[in-house]
Amino acid sequence: MSLPPKPRIEPEADIHSLLEVRWSPRAFTDEEISPQTLRPLFEAARWSASCFNAQPWNFIETRRGAEAFDRLLDCLTPNNQSWAKNAALLVLAIARLNFENGKPNRHAYYDLGQSVAQLTLEATAAGLGVHQMAGFDAARARERFQIPEGYDPVSTIAIGFPGQPERLPDKLQERELAPRERSPQRAFLFAEQWGVASPLTEDPRPKS
Amino acid sequence: MSLPPKPRIEPEADIHSLLEVRWSPRAFTDEEISPQTLRPLFEAARWSASCFNAQPWNFIETRRGAEAFDRLLDCLTPNNQSWAKNAALLVLAIARLNFENGKPNRHAYYDLGQSVAQLTLEATAAGLGVHQMAGFDAARARERFQIPEGYDPVSTIAIGFPGQPERLPDKLQERELAPRERSPQRAFLFAEQWGVASPLTEDPRPKS
Repeated sequence: MSLPPKPRIEPEADIHSLLEVRWSPRAFTDEEISPQTLRPLFEAARWSASCFNAQPWNFIETRRGAEAFDRLLDCLTPNNQSWAKNAALLVLAIARLNFENGKPNRHAYYDLGQSVAQLTLEATAAGLGVHQMAGFDAARARERFQIPEGYDPVSTIAIGFPGQPERLPDKLQERELAPRERSPQRAFLFAEQWGVASPLTEDPRPKS
Repeated sequence: MSLPPKPRIEPEADIHSLLEVRWSPRAFTDEEISPQTLRPLFEAARWSASCFNAQPWNFIETRRGAEAFDRLLDCLTPNNQSWAKNAALLVLAIARLNFENGKPNRHAYYDLGQSVAQLTLEATAAGLGVHQMAGFDAARARERFQIPEGYDPVSTIAIGFPGQPERLPDKLQERELAPRERSPQRAFLFAEQWGVASPLTEDPRPKS
């Protein structure tokens, strides 16, 4: 079992297969995920890098069928609810905003993002699909999950075994099958100065 | 060529080898990195997930020996300079703080972090070491690299082939050889409610 292939528009270099096959599906099967399969996801998050090794990440996991799952689902935008309700797991990812000494950690969100990227790739290796959502009501999630001051709910993560696009509402089916797109490297990779495209962005491969 | 093994204290589950072998070395060889090896790193960053596919990441790459490398090195704390000067590449990672419509992107740092995590794992697959630094003067970097308003320099990334710890100042040699440490899963992984450790955090393996 693994993610169905999703074409990438204008790739500029080959990348490791684990990174290449990752994308963010919305269609899931009804299958549950065993604890044996889930444990490594959070272990992968755990061994991520962080500023001063502060590990400013917390996760609340909820399983489909549990009251807490519906409570988290209810924090999502209606559009996200329409497909995320079929995920096996919804996880709330929370940043700890201060270091232990009380000073603000400028890298809290950045390091939480790294940690979730590692979780996502571990899930990909296990044949799971991961779809992160920014579209949720953080204030409502804070209240419903009793998140204390100094912590910020940043994303909600849907995880499940990839399913058939036919399960999705019509307009989402199209997106599920559309190829992946990104800005070209020259738009974001500079050398030595802002705005100066790096020579690395010149694709050395023959033009097709 | 690859990262020397670094023991992990109290791992709680097995994870994918690419994630398992990653750590943040400070010792590098003098070897340069070819464009063929470097291009996939930024391609990996490119295909990261982001909120609304906004891709809020920019990178400025500088190579050892170039004036721009010294310019970036000079933005680091003295402690970071003491080892980062030997990296083959120093990269400034910059978050774009607003969406194209001008509204603030709450996930800019988070998504930059995800992108750098992907870059790091691609580098790990290529046998490179990556060490991210929060310890640099962001205001100085902004001025020296002409970073415009609305963008924030978030981290500086040292990349190179892993070298002998003996190249490092004494106190850093010890850290280079020390095992990796993390808080236990039960400290950050909750189920259904804040502060309630998830059953997933109970290690099912026999105690040694």
